[in-house]
Amino acid sequence: MTSELLLDSVFLRACRGEPVPHPPVWFMRQAGRALPEYRAARKGIPMLQACSTPELIAEITVQPVRRYGVDAAIIFSDIVVPLKAIGVDLDIVPGVGPVVASPIATRADVDLLRPLEPVDVGFLDAAVRLAVAELGATPLIGFAGAPFTLASYLVEGGPSREHLKTKALMYSQPALWHSLLDRLATIAVAFLRVQVGAGARAVQLFDSWAGILSPADYRTYVLPHSARVLAELADLRVPRIHFGVGTGELLALMGAAGADVVGVDWRVPLDVAATRIGDHHAVQGNLDPAMVFAPREVIAEAASDVIARCRAARGHIFNLGHGVLPTTDPDVLSRLVDFVHQSAGPAVGA
Amino acid sequence: MTSELLLDSVFLRACRGEPVPHPPVWFMRQAGRALPEYRAARKGIPMLQACSTPELIAEITVQPVRRYGVDAAIIFSDIVVPLKAIGVDLDIVPGVGPVVASPIATRADVDLLRPLEPVDVGFLDAAVRLAVAELGATPLIGFAGAPFTLASYLVEGGPSREHLKTKALMYSQPALWHSLLDRLATIAVAFLRVQVGAGARAVQLFDSWAGILSPADYRTYVLPHSARVLAELADLRVPRIHFGVGTGELLALMGAAGADVVGVDWRVPLDVAATRIGDHHAVQGNLDPAMVFAPREVIAEAASDVIARCRAARGHIFNLGHGVLPTTDPDVLSRLVDFVHQSAGPAVGA
Repeated sequence: MTSELLLDSVFLRACRGEPVPHPPVWFMRQAGRALPEYRAARKGIPMLQACSTPELIAEITVQPVRRYGVDAAIIFSDIVVPLKAIGVDLDIVPGVGPVVASPIATRADVDLLRPLEPVDVGFLDAAVRLAVAELGATPLIGFAGAPFTLASYLVEGGPSREHLKTKALMYSQPALWHSLLDRLATIAVAFLRVQVGAGARAVQLFDSWAGILSPADYRTYVLPHSARVLAELADLRVPRIHFGVGTGELLALMGAAGADVVGVDWRVPLDVAATRIGDHHAVQGNLDPAMVFAPREVIAEAASDVIARCRAARGHIFNLGHGVLPTTDPDVLSRLVDFVHQSAGPAVGA
Repeated sequence: MTSELLLDSVFLRACRGEPVPHPPVWFMRQAGRALPEYRAARKGIPMLQACSTPELIAEITVQPVRRYGVDAAIIFSDIVVPLKAIGVDLDIVPGVGPVVASPIATRADVDLLRPLEPVDVGFLDAAVRLAVAELGATPLIGFAGAPFTLASYLVEGGPSREHLKTKALMYSQPALWHSLLDRLATIAVAFLRVQVGAGARAVQLFDSWAGILSPADYRTYVLPHSARVLAELADLRVPRIHFGVGTGELLALMGAAGADVVGVDWRVPLDVAATRIGDHHAVQGNLDPAMVFAPREVIAEAASDVIARCRAARGHIFNLGHGVLPTTDPDVLSRLVDFVHQSAGPAVGA
C-alpha cells in the first residue's frame, strides 16, 4: 500500500511528467545547518562520523520532512562518502569542505581508486532502510557526486575556485583523465545502486562544478562518464535528476546524458531552461537561495514567477537553484513550501 | 598622424564592426603578475601605491604591449581606485583582494560616497598621458568597475562567494540600493571621463560579479545604473566594452545597456553569444584562461574554434574569457598572440 502511495506521490509523478495538483517541492541541503534540530543532532559529531552512523543519518534525513512537509527527502550524506569508503584519506573540514590528504596526480594515484563494494557502505544501506521506514509515503532521493566534481576534489585536494590543476590534468593527460573519471563513474554507480536497493525512489547526480567548463570541454571530457553513470541505473527504473551550478550552456547536454529531470540554478529562467533541455525531461529549480533574505512579498513574487515559467514544461519540481544557505531562517522555507503547495501544477496533461 | 593610425587600428576597427585583416587581441590582466617585468616593477610596492604612481602605472601598462605585441593596452589600475580616491577606507590585500574597513549598510554610509572630481585622480590623468605617449599607434583602454560590482565590495566588505549581504540589501531596501548604485554610477562616469580625456581610446566597464544575478534581478536592480554609465559616455565617441563573468543569460541585457562590444566568458560559445547579443554589437573573448595550461596543439585548436565562431559576428576582439591567471607562462600568451594575428578576420564587410 505504501509502495503504491509512493509511486503515486506528487514528486515521482512530476519526475515522470505526469499531471500533479501542485508542483512538488524539496530543497537541496534541506537536511542541514539551517535547522536547529540538525545542529542539535550533529552536536560534537564530525561530519564524516555523522555520515556513517545509520540512526543519525536517518534522523537528519527525516527532519526536514517533519518540519517543512516537503514532498521528498534526500539522504543525508556527502559526495565524498564513497571515496572515504574505499580508503581515500580525506576529511570534511568545517568551514572549508572536503580536504584530500594526497591529491591525485599520477597513474599510480588513479590506480589506487578501487571499485566500491556494497559492504563498504553497509551503514548507508542501513540508514536508507531506516529512513524509508519512517518516511512512509514520502519518497527518498539517493545521491552521488558526478565523476567530474569528484575528480576536481581529488585533483585539487579540496574546494577550488579556478580548478586549474583539474583542467591542466584534463587537457594535458587525457588518457589518465578518462581513466580517473571512468573509475569515479564506476564508484558512483555502485554508490547509487546501494541506495536504490535499500529503498531510495529517485537519484540525483550532483555535478556541482561542471559549470566551470565550456560546452566543448564538457562534451569531450565529462559527458561520456556522467552518461555511463545514468545509463547503468536505467534498469532500476527510478527517476534520475542531474544537477550542476552555472550550467546554462550545458543544460541540453546534461539532459541528453540520460537524465529524466535536469536541475537548473537561478541564473537561467526555467522557461528558457526547459526550451534548451527539450520536451523529454522535467526541470527542477530554481529560486535564488539568497532570495530567502528578501521580504515576504518579494519571495512570493519570485516563487510565482518560477512556477509560472514551468506551466508548459514536461514536469516541474520546485527547488532552490542551489543548496539552502546555512543562515536561512527555516520559517521562511516553511512558508515557501506552503506557498508552492497552494499553487496550481503544470498545465501539461492536467 | 598617430591619431589617424590609432583610429585605424585593428582594435578600434573591430570595436566599430569594420573589416579587419585579423582579429585584434588583448588579454584582461595582461599587465599583471604573470609577467616577470611586472613583478620586478612592483617589488615592495603595495598595490594601491602602485596604482597612484603615474610613471609606474604607465610602465606596467606598456609592458604587455612590448612583450606580446597585443593590439591594445589597458591602463593598470583597480576598480576600487576611484573609491579610495574619494576617501573610502579600503586596501587591496595580497591573496585576498579589496578589503573595506567599514562596509556599507545604512543611508548614512551611502551618503558618505561623494562624487569623484578629476582632481581626486590627477595621478591617473598623468599616467594615461604618459602611457599614451609611449604607446603611439596602440590604443589604450580605460576602465572602471560597474556600479553593481563596486556595491558588492562595499556592502560585503571584500570579495564574496555568495554576495548575501549585497542581495539582502538589494531585496530588502530597494530605495537605499538604488541610491547606492546611483552614486557609484556617477563615480564610474567621472573616473572613465578622466581617462578618455587624457587619451584613452576605448573603455571597458567591468561588472565582474553581475553573473550571480538572475536576469530579472539584473534588469531591476542593476541595468538602469550601468546603462546610465554607458549613456553618459556616448558623447566621447569611444567604443564601450561591457564585461562580466557567468553572464550567459545577461548578454542581451548587457548589450542593450549601451555597449558597443560585449565581453563573454568561456562558458558561452561565441556564436551562441553573438546570437543572444544581436547584430549591433561586437563581441570580445573568450578562450578559457585555464587553457594556457594545455599542450600547444590543444590551445591552437581551441583558439581556432573561438575565431571560427565569430566569422559572422559584427566584430570580434580576441581575449580570454576572464583575466590572465598569475601562474600563466608568458611565452604561451606570446604564441597565442602570434596565432591570432595569423588568422583571418571576420568575413563581415571584408
